[in-house]
Formats: sequence, C-alpha cells, structure tokens
Amino acid sequence: MRMVDIIEKKRDGEALTKDEINFVIQGYTNGEIPDYQMSAFSMAIYFQDMSPEERAYLTMAMVESGDQIDLSMIDGIKVDKHSTGGVGDTTTLVLGPLVAAVGVPVAKMSGRGLGHTGGTIDKLEAVDGFTVEISNEKFIDLVNEHKIAIIGQSGNLTPADKKLYALRDVTATVNAIPLIASSIMSKKIAAGADAIVLDVKTGAGAFMKDLEGSKQLAQAMVEIGNNVGRKTMAIISDMSQPLGFAIGNSLEVKEAIDTLQGKGPKDLEELCLTLGSYMVYLANEASSLEEARQKLVDVMNNGKALETFKIFLTNQGGDASVVDNPEKLPQASYIIEVPAQADGHVSEIIADEIGTAAMILGAGRATKESTIDLAVGLVLNKKVGDSVSKGESLVTIHSNSENVEEIKNRIYESISISDTKVDAPTLIYTTITS
Amino acid sequence: MRMVDIIEKKRDGEALTKDEINFVIQGYTNGEIPDYQMSAFSMAIYFQDMSPEERAYLTMAMVESGDQIDLSMIDGIKVDKHSTGGVGDTTTLVLGPLVAAVGVPVAKMSGRGLGHTGGTIDKLEAVDGFTVEISNEKFIDLVNEHKIAIIGQSGNLTPADKKLYALRDVTATVNAIPLIASSIMSKKIAAGADAIVLDVKTGAGAFMKDLEGSKQLAQAMVEIGNNVGRKTMAIISDMSQPLGFAIGNSLEVKEAIDTLQGKGPKDLEELCLTLGSYMVYLANEASSLEEARQKLVDVMNNGKALETFKIFLTNQGGDASVVDNPEKLPQASYIIEVPAQADGHVSEIIADEIGTAAMILGAGRATKESTIDLAVGLVLNKKVGDSVSKGESLVTIHSNSENVEEIKNRIYESISISDTKVDAPTLIYTTITS
Repeated sequence: MRMVDIIEKKRDGEALTKDEINFVIQGYTNGEIPDYQMSAFSMAIYFQDMSPEERAYLTMAMVESGDQIDLSMIDGIKVDKHSTGGVGDTTTLVLGPLVAAVGVPVAKMSGRGLGHTGGTIDKLEAVDGFTVEISNEKFIDLVNEHKIAIIGQSGNLTPADKKLYALRDVTATVNAIPLIASSIMSKKIAAGADAIVLDVKTGAGAFMKDLEGSKQLAQAMVEIGNNVGRKTMAIISDMSQPLGFAIGNSLEVKEAIDTLQGKGPKDLEELCLTLGSYMVYLANEASSLEEARQKLVDVMNNGKALETFKIFLTNQGGDASVVDNPEKLPQASYIIEVPAQADGHVSEIIADEIGTAAMILGAGRATKESTIDLAVGLVLNKKVGDSVSKGESLVTIHSNSENVEEIKNRIYESISISDTKVDAPTLIYTTITS
Repeated sequence: MRMVDIIEKKRDGEALTKDEINFVIQGYTNGEIPDYQMSAFSMAIYFQDMSPEERAYLTMAMVESGDQIDLSMIDGIKVDKHSTGGVGDTTTLVLGPLVAAVGVPVAKMSGRGLGHTGGTIDKLEAVDGFTVEISNEKFIDLVNEHKIAIIGQSGNLTPADKKLYALRDVTATVNAIPLIASSIMSKKIAAGADAIVLDVKTGAGAFMKDLEGSKQLAQAMVEIGNNVGRKTMAIISDMSQPLGFAIGNSLEVKEAIDTLQGKGPKDLEELCLTLGSYMVYLANEASSLEEARQKLVDVMNNGKALETFKIFLTNQGGDASVVDNPEKLPQASYIIEVPAQADGHVSEIIADEIGTAAMILGAGRATKESTIDLAVGLVLNKKVGDSVSKGESLVTIHSNSENVEEIKNRIYESISISDTKVDAPTLIYTTITS
C-alpha cells in the first residue's frame, strides 16, 4: 500500500477500506507517513467526505493508535457526556453529581485546556483541597462505591488524533465533519465510554456557528457511536448567548450548587435535566426518558444530588463545606456593575465576545502558560428576551483589578438592546438518536 | 499574512490576490512555508481551481523564484516550443534546424530527463563529438550568427516549481490544470521565451489521456502566456500511437535527418510543419500561417534545412558527416523483426507500452542513475490504419542483446490487429490561439 494511492482514491471520491484507513492512521502515528501527505489527505476528505463505514473505521483506528482506558472493573454502564464547548457551560459540574445520585456510574477523566474559562478540573480546584491526583485503584473504588469520581488525564490516549488535530489546525482542515466527529468520538471511546451523550452547541459561541452544520456533526457522531457498538444520543443546544448566568471558575461552582438544588438558571437546569435523562436512560437506570427525568427532579428536590456533590468533593480531598457556604470559594476583590445605557429588551449577547471578556479578566487561559484566577468572572443579570431599564445592571464583573474599562467596553459591544420585545432563543433545537 | 488563512480562502473557492500568491511562493521557496501547508493548498487548488488572473500570478511568482535567462542579446523574437511529452517524439530535433533555416532564432536550453528515450541532448549526443557544454557567450554568438544553438541547463531556474512538483508527485495533486499549466509556462518564461508554441499530446502515451483534459490544459497555458505578455499558441496532437516510426536515440536522429529532407514519416512531417508554421509566424518571419508553412516546405526541398542541421552539429563539435552517412551513428548489434501473427489491419499501437519496451531495451532511463544505450530502439513498420499480412514485420528491434523475448511479447501485447479496416487516428485535433 502506498499513501499517495490512498490520497488519490479519496481525492476521486472513492470509499477507503478498513485496511487502508488503518494503514494511514498507523503510519501517521509512527511517523512513516509524513505531515505533507496527511494534510493533502485531510483536504481531500474535506471535499469528498467519508461514508459512515469509513468514519467508523477512522474512529476505531484512532482509538487503537494509543492507550485505552479499561473501566470494566466498574459496575454498570459507563455513560460519558461530551459538549462541543461554549461559554459559561456549567453542565458537567451539575450533571456528574446529578446522575450519580440516581445510580449512574460517573467515571470521568478530564483535562484543563484553553478557553474562556478553565476546564472542569480548574473549576473544581476552586474548592479548597480538591485534587484529581488519585490512583487508578482509588478512582475505580470511588466510582463503584459512590458512583462518581474524576481523574486527571494520563496515559497516551489517541495520539493519532492529537497529531492530526495539530496538523489540521494549520492547514485549514479543521472544519471537516468526518474529521471532527471521529476526533471527538475516538477520545470518548478510548476513555472507556460504553455509551455517549453529546451536547452539540450551535451559534456564535460554539465551534459550529450554524444549525445545519451542527446537525450534520451530531448526526455523524451518533452514527459512528452506533456503528462501533456505543449507544449514542445527541442534542443540539443554543450557544448564541452564554448558558446560565456565571462565566468564571468559582462563579460556576456556585452556580452548579444552586442548580443541584433546583435554584439555578432555568436554561442550565433544563439542559442538565435533558442531557441527564439521556444518560440515565442509556445507563439502563430508567425504562423511559420520562422516568429518567422524574428521577433527576426527585434527587434535586430531596437533596440527594447536593449530598452526592458533597461526598464527591470530600472523597477527593475537597472542603465540602463550600456547598453550604459558597462564600468560602475564592472571591474577587472588586464587584462592579455594568448598567444598561437605555431602556429596552436584550436582543443579543454574543457568547464568544462575552467569553473573551471573561478570559481577559483572568478566568481562562489564552495560552498553555497562562495562569487562571479562579475568583474572577462575569455574572449575567439579563439574558436575551429580558426587558431592562436604563441604569439596571446588565452584568456584574468580579475582578481582582479595579480598572475594568476595557472589560466594560467589551461587554457593551457584545450586548444589544432593542426597542421592541424579543423572544428568548430556543434552548434545545433537536435530538438525534440514530 | 498567514498561510493557513490563504489555504482557507482557496479552500472556500475565493480568488487569491497577487500579493497572497507571491507570499505563498516566496515563503515556500525559502522554506518558511512547510510542505504540509503547501500540499493542503495544492489539494484545495485541485478542487477549487484558479482564475486566469491567479494562474498568471502563480506562473510569474514561480518565474521570479529563481534565475531568469536573459536572451536580450539575441536578435529577433525568441520562440520556444514545448511538448507535454510522448513516445518517439522527434519534433524538437527536426523543428530546430527547420525554423532556424527560415531565420527564426532557436536558443534552446535542454535537459536529459527520465522516460522512454533520452531527452533532446541525449539524442544529439548520438552524433560523435557533439556537446552542449558551451559558454553563454558562445551560445549567444552562435544563435545570432547561425540562428540555432543548444545549451545544457544551468542556473537555478524556477526552484519553486521544482520543489512543488516533487511535493505534488507524492500527494496526488499532480493532475490539477492550474498547477500543471503554471509549472510548464514558468519554465519556458524563465528560460527566456518571448513567445511559446505548445504541443499538448493526448492519448494513451500522453500525460493527458483524454481530449477534454488536453484542451483544458492547452487553453490554460495559452491564457497564461497571453496574460503575462508572451504570445502563445497551442495544438492538441495525437499520442495514442507513437509519433513517426523511430523510438530510440540514434534511430530518431536518423529519422530527423530524413524528415528535414521531406522523406520522413508523414505524421511527424505534418506535425513539424504545423508547429513550425506557428513558430515562424510568432517570430514575425511570415505574415500568415500559409506563408510560414510555404517557407518551411521550401527549406526542406532546397536543402537549406538539412544544411542548417549540419552547421548546428559542426558548431557544437559534432561530426556532421553523419547527416549524409547515418550509418556512422551508433548501431545496434542485432536487428530483429517482429512478424505479424495474422492478416488484418493495425487497429491499435499503445504508445506508452511500446515506449516502455524501448526503455527496457536501454533507449531510456528508468531512474536518474540509468545509462542510455544510444544505439538501441524500435522502428515501427506499420502504424494504425495500415493493413498487414501474416509474417510481415510489424516492428524492427534494434538491440545489443540477442535475447529479446520479453520485448517481443510486450510489442505483441501493445499492437492489435483487426479483421476490419481501420482509419488512421486524427493527428491534430485542434488549435488554440487565445
């Protein structure tokens, strides 16, 4: 087999065999196939797409390119949730304790990453003493006993994907559905998921800006999952404006605590109940989505969800008293309101621009070397569709610097106020189950 | 400017500016743009094509990537001829002396190259003593005084093209019209051509196998030439069967001598008169194509074409007595006939397979390290459309080895004989002048 022939075959729109795809991924991982062939191949895929079978082969070839986490020692069906990412997305913090409280095993491996705010691990480290540096044995014991634990990323998972992603980033081949879908799915499968629930974000703050592209990506991932024996479901949810109110690490932990008690922002709560229902259903802990949802509402109402969060924090060295006393979380020195400059109705909050304002405050990392300030961030007091009076606070800035003029300007630029009444955006556009 | 943005722009079908194309070619030539970006860019061009303006910018950017030959010391309009290559293509050997004899300056830079037979220089070296190792000054003096000289390739012409061609070869991006066209045109322009006549071959023995692709390539090159101020004309000519009778170095020199006297194969003569007419016309040595053709016929008939060939050989150290005594050219030890195995009509002679048989005999180079045997080759005794009787010779093998069974088998496999009468293929399909 020669790589140039495989590139030509894909260029001409033919479907590749499993052997050919394995040859490409193995050869690229071990360095026998050079970057310049892989980038031409990626561009050919961009234009010629891949069949469902090819996408499944590609995903499994990337899974097999490195270590695979064995979660077979954990009882039950391990359901993983993945979000394509957005601004102020506190769902992972809420969903873990929420579904664990109804018996779904949550064995989460997580990272830090770049972005507007930290990753899930950064957020949890706002809780004093909390650590993900636990042994594999302890991780497995904790999930078996308490249904939830989180561990830092270790091992060499999907090296082919890491190498390919870095190449795609500099060759304008990121936006190819088969490559995005196989990248995400391979990471989830290598991390040991038996079943997968996907939250594909759409809108200005999302990776996919338009609904059609988001649907194609969701469809592609669900097909891959089902073709490789992992039950997979996906929803398309709004990311035109940030989710919930809080954007920042401590602020999102606080928001998660509120939401676990049914006192959080309604959009965040609804999204968590929807995604959670799928997780509970796929884990066989309910026989219908309605039953699953009722179980989640029950543990929110009876305190079991919050209790599970406390146990989870305690198990991993965290000071669980923050749950009842959120003021113990890192607090910013300056709380500064951003008043509306006119009466009207909020018609737009551009998610990624608000996110960038939070990152500049220090809530997220622009580069790997950046340090996160866990205390800082933004809280939205108004969301799209809300009416507002001149002088009322649109956003509360939590800052450790008194000078927030640039942040304020960015906030004003990203929020539009209209004279006429505006509807809140649709939160969940559609669900894809096969 | 960032290369990734330029790749994305081309991927999305937008036209690039002159500055962007210069940025790409300069960056790639000096190593600032890596192969993996250039190959993705090439694949994007494969799918999205380039506008006539982009093709002209790309061509001139490649011309400017290295040395440019200055032929301004030579009087007259320097017209260069380029063939996209085929089997048994003796046109360059004939055309040089032919158009020089009517006053067109022929200042040819040539190479050796791989293929079924040697390049023009290899063929001419079948003449004892002939050399292309002459100084630039002598080269220019010879063309001014005698209208024809040939010099070996020197200088660093179109390094961007060399580097890009090697990359395209291993990334399945060779067959992109804008890249092929700009590659050919940049080399001709860098070599100093004021005007260019193109012979785009079509058929089994050609780079372009189908007529439609050949037309697109010819059209693209003529447009580039005219857009960058070099008058350019192209013909599409047949390469389904070899041109002329001879395939081999000495054999083609002999065939060129015959043709210069009007005694050569009719297809080769017709092609030389057609291409030659365009050269004479573009060089302003005739006011119409008809007048140009008549001038060429005249110098064939009155001996001036042959005389010019003798002077050319003598000027560059060659023994011109071979023109009157072709038996002085290197001769093979074995002359072996390949008899027809049935009565009928020759319906096919697959050009590239016959060419490969000649190469295996030793007439051409498979790799840069191969040595050419100037004496060996094949002479076709029948061409498509000819009738043949069982036992009559189809091909004469000139070999320095007695064992030619493999060659014979290849010849039989590449020649088809039909029961019914067959027309000779069209020689010149079309002409493209703008």
